[in-house]
Amino acid sequence: MTATVPADLDAWLAAQHARTMDELFAFLRIPSVSARSEHRADCRAAAQWLADRLTHAGFTAALHDTPGHPVVLGEWRGAGPDAPTLLVYGHYDVQPAEPLELWTSPAFEPEVRDGRIYARGSVDDKGQLYLHVKALEAHLAVRGTLPVNVIVLAEGEEEVGSEHLEAFLETHKERLRCDGVVISDSTMFAPGIPSILSSLRGMAYLQIDVQGASTDLHSGMYGGAVVNPAMALARILATMHDDHGRVAIEGFYDAVQAWPDAVRAQMRTLPFDEEHFRAETGAPALGGEAGYSVLEQLWTRPTCEVNGLLSGYTGEGAKTVLPAVAMAKVSFRLVPDQDPKVIERLVAAHVARVCPTGVTATVTALHGGRPWRSELGGPLHDAGVVALEAAFGRAPVITGEGGSIPVVGDFERVLGAPVLLMGFGLPGENAHAPDEWISEENFRQGARAAATLLDAYAAAQR
Amino acid sequence: MTATVPADLDAWLAAQHARTMDELFAFLRIPSVSARSEHRADCRAAAQWLADRLTHAGFTAALHDTPGHPVVLGEWRGAGPDAPTLLVYGHYDVQPAEPLELWTSPAFEPEVRDGRIYARGSVDDKGQLYLHVKALEAHLAVRGTLPVNVIVLAEGEEEVGSEHLEAFLETHKERLRCDGVVISDSTMFAPGIPSILSSLRGMAYLQIDVQGASTDLHSGMYGGAVVNPAMALARILATMHDDHGRVAIEGFYDAVQAWPDAVRAQMRTLPFDEEHFRAETGAPALGGEAGYSVLEQLWTRPTCEVNGLLSGYTGEGAKTVLPAVAMAKVSFRLVPDQDPKVIERLVAAHVARVCPTGVTATVTALHGGRPWRSELGGPLHDAGVVALEAAFGRAPVITGEGGSIPVVGDFERVLGAPVLLMGFGLPGENAHAPDEWISEENFRQGARAAATLLDAYAAAQR
Repeated sequence: MTATVPADLDAWLAAQHARTMDELFAFLRIPSVSARSEHRADCRAAAQWLADRLTHAGFTAALHDTPGHPVVLGEWRGAGPDAPTLLVYGHYDVQPAEPLELWTSPAFEPEVRDGRIYARGSVDDKGQLYLHVKALEAHLAVRGTLPVNVIVLAEGEEEVGSEHLEAFLETHKERLRCDGVVISDSTMFAPGIPSILSSLRGMAYLQIDVQGASTDLHSGMYGGAVVNPAMALARILATMHDDHGRVAIEGFYDAVQAWPDAVRAQMRTLPFDEEHFRAETGAPALGGEAGYSVLEQLWTRPTCEVNGLLSGYTGEGAKTVLPAVAMAKVSFRLVPDQDPKVIERLVAAHVARVCPTGVTATVTALHGGRPWRSELGGPLHDAGVVALEAAFGRAPVITGEGGSIPVVGDFERVLGAPVLLMGFGLPGENAHAPDEWISEENFRQGARAAATLLDAYAAAQR
Repeated sequence: MTATVPADLDAWLAAQHARTMDELFAFLRIPSVSARSEHRADCRAAAQWLADRLTHAGFTAALHDTPGHPVVLGEWRGAGPDAPTLLVYGHYDVQPAEPLELWTSPAFEPEVRDGRIYARGSVDDKGQLYLHVKALEAHLAVRGTLPVNVIVLAEGEEEVGSEHLEAFLETHKERLRCDGVVISDSTMFAPGIPSILSSLRGMAYLQIDVQGASTDLHSGMYGGAVVNPAMALARILATMHDDHGRVAIEGFYDAVQAWPDAVRAQMRTLPFDEEHFRAETGAPALGGEAGYSVLEQLWTRPTCEVNGLLSGYTGEGAKTVLPAVAMAKVSFRLVPDQDPKVIERLVAAHVARVCPTGVTATVTALHGGRPWRSELGGPLHDAGVVALEAAFGRAPVITGEGGSIPVVGDFERVLGAPVLLMGFGLPGENAHAPDEWISEENFRQGARAAATLLDAYAAAQR
C-alpha cells in the first residue's frame, strides 16, 4: 500500500488551518496550571473549552469530576458495536510557567516565530491533543462519520502525577473498553523524521539511610574508632557498579530481555552525534555501561543513579563533625522485564551484604514503575506506520525513551489495549521550561497523520 | 625525691578555700560569652576582674586591647633576669550557655551539688585558670616572693578561635619570652588519676567538589550515558581506606613517627572500657584501623573522615535528578610528624588519580593544623610530674587527645618554649554543654599542684 493522506481530509485540514490555529491559540491562552490552586478555575475552563470543541465536532462530550481536576470524556460510537474502538488520550493541564522573566513572549499569549508556536502547553500537550480533535472533526465534517468508534479522554493532572487517572480508568473500565490507545505526548527523533516511541524505562527509587553513632560526634574525640556513616555510605554506593559501568548487584540483569535485533540495527542508523550530545550536557566525557552506544544506554539499558546525598556539615568552611547519619537517594532505571519490586529486594539484600560493620543501613522504597515496550506489530502499530509515512513522506523510526510515562502502563493494564505513542514534539522544545514551542509544520503533519490513522486502522481490521 | 606539697602553701590554700570559692563564684557570675556581641561588656568586666585579682595577689596586671576581646597580662618579675620564667595561659571567655532550659541551676549562678561546682566556665576555663591565680597568691602571701618569674596571659577569645592571640604573641614576643608554658584547660583521664596531656592530633580539612554535566539533568533522559558525579564522589571516597581501616593514600603514613614504647605500654594499663565507650556513642560496633586499641586509634593514629556530603535532591520523597555536582568535606586527623600541607598535596594527587572519567574533581584546602607531641622530659615536664604526684598522691599518667588545641602550637612556635598541659577537668564535665561542672576536689588539688609546680620547677633548674 502506498501511504497517502486521504485527499478529502487533507483538503479540509488545509482549508481550516487558519481557523484551527485561532482555536489552538484560544486553548493555549487558558492558564490551566494543574499544580497551582489559584488556577483551579482555569483548569476547569480548559476542560470545558475542550469538551465544547468535541461537541462542536460531533462528539458527545462531558466533564467528569475527580477529587482533583476534571476528566474530559468525548465519545463517538457511530461505527456500531461490532466496529473497533480507538481511545485518544491527552492532557489539557500544563506545567507552571515560572520563571516568567525567561519567556521571550508571555507564556499564555501564543506567538508564532520562525515557524514555531510559542506558549506554555503548545507541545505539552494541548497542541498534540488538539491536532487529534481536528483530525476527528475533519472526518465528521467531510464524511459525516468516522471509520471506527473513538473515545477522547483528556485529563487535567498529568503534570502533577495523574493521581486520579488510574481510579477513573478502573471505575469506567467497561465504558472505556477499546482496541487501542493513541497518545501524542512525545517527540520525534529529529525534524522530518516521524517516530513511534516504543519503549519507556521503568524505575525503582530507593533511599538508603546509614546510621552510626546515635548523635553527631566530635571528629577529633571519636574519629578513628567510631565508624563514619558517610564513608560507609560511600563504600556501599561504590559497590553498585563494576569498573565497566555495569550494575554489580546480584541478579540485577536476570530479567533483562534482549532488544529486538531489527530495532537495535535501526537505532544504529539514526542520525545521532554523541559528541554533540556530550557537548550539550557540558560533561567532560561520557561514560556509562561499556559496549553500548549512547542511544542504547539511554533506551535499552538499566541504570543505577545517585539522585541525592546528604550527611553532616554542608555549609561554608570546616566543621569537624563525625556525622551520626548519612542518606542517599538511589534510583534504578529499568528495562523489560525488570520488576521494580524485585529490584528493590535485590538492592536491599545487596546493601545488607556490603554494609560495613559499625553502622546500620536501612533501605526504603520510595517509588516504582514498570518498564514498557510495545509490540512492534499488530493493527494499531501498523496503522501508525502507514499514517506517519503518509503525512511525512517517509517511514517512521522506532525510538525509545529513557524516562517514564506512567499512564502508558495504566492503559495497557486496566484496559488491556495496546498503546501507540506517536509524538510530534521535537528536541529542544522546552516542554517544562520557558519558551516552550511546537513546530507549526509538525502540528499540521500531525493532524494529517492522525486523520489518516483512523482510515489505516479501519483498513487493517478488515 | 618524695613529692609533697610545701606545707606553708598547703596551709594557706586550705585556710583560704572558702574565700577562694567566693571569688571563683564571682568570676563565674560574669557572663563573658565571647561569641555574643551583647556580652562584649561582660567579657571586658571578666578581664578587669581577673586583672584586679592578679594585682591584689601582687602582680602587675593590665588589659591589652585587641580587635576582639582584651588580653589580660599579669607579670611578676621579682625573681630577677637570671631566673627562669614560666607563662601560665588560660582564658576568661566562655561558651554560650544555650539551651538555657537544660541547665539544672542557672548557668551564671554557680551552685555546688555533690562536690561539683556547676556553672558555665567552671571547668572551661575560669576554674582551671583561677586555681593558678590562687597558687601564685599563696606563694606571695606566705613567702612574699615566687621562686621563678611568672607571666599570666589570659585571653578572651579561646571559644571563638583565638583569632587575635597569635598576633598578640608575635607583637609581644620579647616581653613574653619564657622558659615554659603551663596550661590547665584539659581533663584528667579519670577521677583520682592526674594526667599530663602530651599529644594532640593535627588536621588537614579539605573539600572535594565533583562536577559532571554543567546543569542538573533528568535522570531518565541522560542517566546511563552521562556520568553521575555523586556516584563518582562515592567511588573516590571509597578508595580512601583499605579493607583494614587504613588510609589508602600513597605516602599518607610516610611521616608518621612511632609512639614511645613506654607511653604505649602505659596506655594499655589505663582503665578504659571499650564496650562502655561504644555504648555511650550508640554505634552498633566500633571500627577503625585494625590492630590498634581504641585509645591508640584516638590518640596515636591518623584518620580520614567524611564530615559532610551534599548532592542533588535531599528533600522528602523522590526526584529523578542526575546532579551536576557533588561535594564532600573530608578531614584527616594527623599525628607527628605529618604536615597538613603535605597531606593536602597527597590527597589532591590521589583524587586526581582515582577520579572517574566523565567528571572533574577539585580539591580545596579549608583548614590545617599541625599535630603536637611533647617531649616527655625536661625541667617543666619533670616538675609537672612532681607537682601532680604531690597533690594527688600518685604519679600522673600520660594521655593523648584526638582533637586539637591550636594555641599550643602557637606558643611553641612563637615563644620557642615547651608547653605543659596539666588539666583538672574530668570526663563528663559538659564543657560546651548545659550543666558544665568542675570537681571542687579537683580545683583544690589543682591549686596545690600549681603551687607545688613553681617550687619543683625552680628546683629542677638548679
